[in-house]
Amino acid sequence: MAQGPRPFMSIAYLNGQFLQLAETRVSVLDRGFLFAEAVYEVTAVIEGRLIDSTSHMARLERSAAAIGITLPLSSVEIEAVQKDLVRRNGLDEGLIYLQLTGGADAGREFLAPADLQPTLLMFTQAKHFLDSPAARSGISVITTPDLRWARRDIKSVGLLAQAMAKRIAAEAGAQEAWMVEDGFITEGASSTAFLVTGEGVVTRPYSQAVLAGCTGAALTALAQESGMTVTYRPFTVEEALAAREAFITSASTLCQAVVRIDGQQIGDGNPGPVATRLRQLYIDFARKTAV
Amino acid sequence: MAQGPRPFMSIAYLNGQFLQLAETRVSVLDRGFLFAEAVYEVTAVIEGRLIDSTSHMARLERSAAAIGITLPLSSVEIEAVQKDLVRRNGLDEGLIYLQLTGGADAGREFLAPADLQPTLLMFTQAKHFLDSPAARSGISVITTPDLRWARRDIKSVGLLAQAMAKRIAAEAGAQEAWMVEDGFITEGASSTAFLVTGEGVVTRPYSQAVLAGCTGAALTALAQESGMTVTYRPFTVEEALAAREAFITSASTLCQAVVRIDGQQIGDGNPGPVATRLRQLYIDFARKTAV
Repeated sequence: MAQGPRPFMSIAYLNGQFLQLAETRVSVLDRGFLFAEAVYEVTAVIEGRLIDSTSHMARLERSAAAIGITLPLSSVEIEAVQKDLVRRNGLDEGLIYLQLTGGADAGREFLAPADLQPTLLMFTQAKHFLDSPAARSGISVITTPDLRWARRDIKSVGLLAQAMAKRIAAEAGAQEAWMVEDGFITEGASSTAFLVTGEGVVTRPYSQAVLAGCTGAALTALAQESGMTVTYRPFTVEEALAAREAFITSASTLCQAVVRIDGQQIGDGNPGPVATRLRQLYIDFARKTAV
Repeated sequence: MAQGPRPFMSIAYLNGQFLQLAETRVSVLDRGFLFAEAVYEVTAVIEGRLIDSTSHMARLERSAAAIGITLPLSSVEIEAVQKDLVRRNGLDEGLIYLQLTGGADAGREFLAPADLQPTLLMFTQAKHFLDSPAARSGISVITTPDLRWARRDIKSVGLLAQAMAKRIAAEAGAQEAWMVEDGFITEGASSTAFLVTGEGVVTRPYSQAVLAGCTGAALTALAQESGMTVTYRPFTVEEALAAREAFITSASTLCQAVVRIDGQQIGDGNPGPVATRLRQLYIDFARKTAV
């Protein structure tokens, strides 16, 4: 398979089989489809190697345990499949998507039989994030109410609120939505939210209110190692608008400067020095620790 | 196809085709599978006819509009497919499940192309609810925190919190979970919650905090027509424990008495006169208005 932005040409993995992604199907009785009883991970691939995989595998295990699904493969076996997928798809730079569901029953009942075989899906998606326009110029975000459920620490596919937030962002010409609860920003629809203020780097502490971002955790560790102060506390929309810099992290964007929030320019409207430095530190770390 | 509790033998409808349910599959790129971008309806079937179908079709249209999916068939066409499914499956008593998703893209992006073809799935499930043990003896419910998102008026397949609540109920030997928010019961994991107190019938008013139950709406209209007082207000767990009677409504249970809440007996521990009368009124209404 040729590498490139043509996911329909790519090879997927489903329950032990390698198939054309466009022809990979699951039963309509799959609990991932009927009940959103499923968790997922997105792992970055740079130069054909997995980025921060240990962290993604650990979160997958936590998410799966939280909703009572036993992983059919070990982390080591999953990594082996992911490397195989990278090879089969000739993937140089992009993402590996993994989804684990409760499996398919013979009918639709809220209570699943205990012996249901989970569904494990993986596929790759080519994407250029090392040298993307968004990375060079920064992105715009809008703020919108956080409509999500109470267990955002579980990386579940119950992403309708996030999809709706992304649509609101796109309609406003923005690339990401920062979700707001009780006046405080929780996180982005598909990223972790950061500010740079007089205090240093500010981000929300982990709790059930936000996902523990793998990229964000690695990046804050790098920030601290390089002498920056990282403060874990919730922050308001007003604080964000007044920040020196703002940025997001995720496996699919790494670290991207936010140069506009709700139409208002942040700093001088260009990626600031802290976000730029942290992005480079993360890319160096990613290359060094890739597997 | 023979009627009976063997859903794996039944015929499903998927995007214009009739297929064996066990062999009915959707793309893993379906937005219903990847993002829980999907809404659903469950319609009761009694004596081979659809119950309260107009109400279910109206709610389906509201749910679909709320998440930006255009129905590929009109209500009249959907009803025709549902009647066809009832006939093909020889269904006398049971349910028709309908799911509408945003459709499958060529990859996984939060933002869907505008021209994506929605996925429309329907299948039947034989079930005896007219003369079930639960209807005769009443059910036990437990209370558990309501973890769901803020738009419960949209009947979305983002049902992980409900599936988790049902599991907690089952582990406690109960058949349903009543979800609690700020001290007040919102609704059951798959039903509307009712009390009978000195005021008459009490149930929570419709808002974004609860689903507008089709069966519950028909039942409260019947209660009022027969001279009962219905009060729409939130109620607490303490009020529920002190109620004369409690009951649930849903398409798959019609109206069932709740005789135990969190292990504590309600009334004399048997289905009370109001729940019993309302169940009969609903069954009479269902038979009379079935299509």
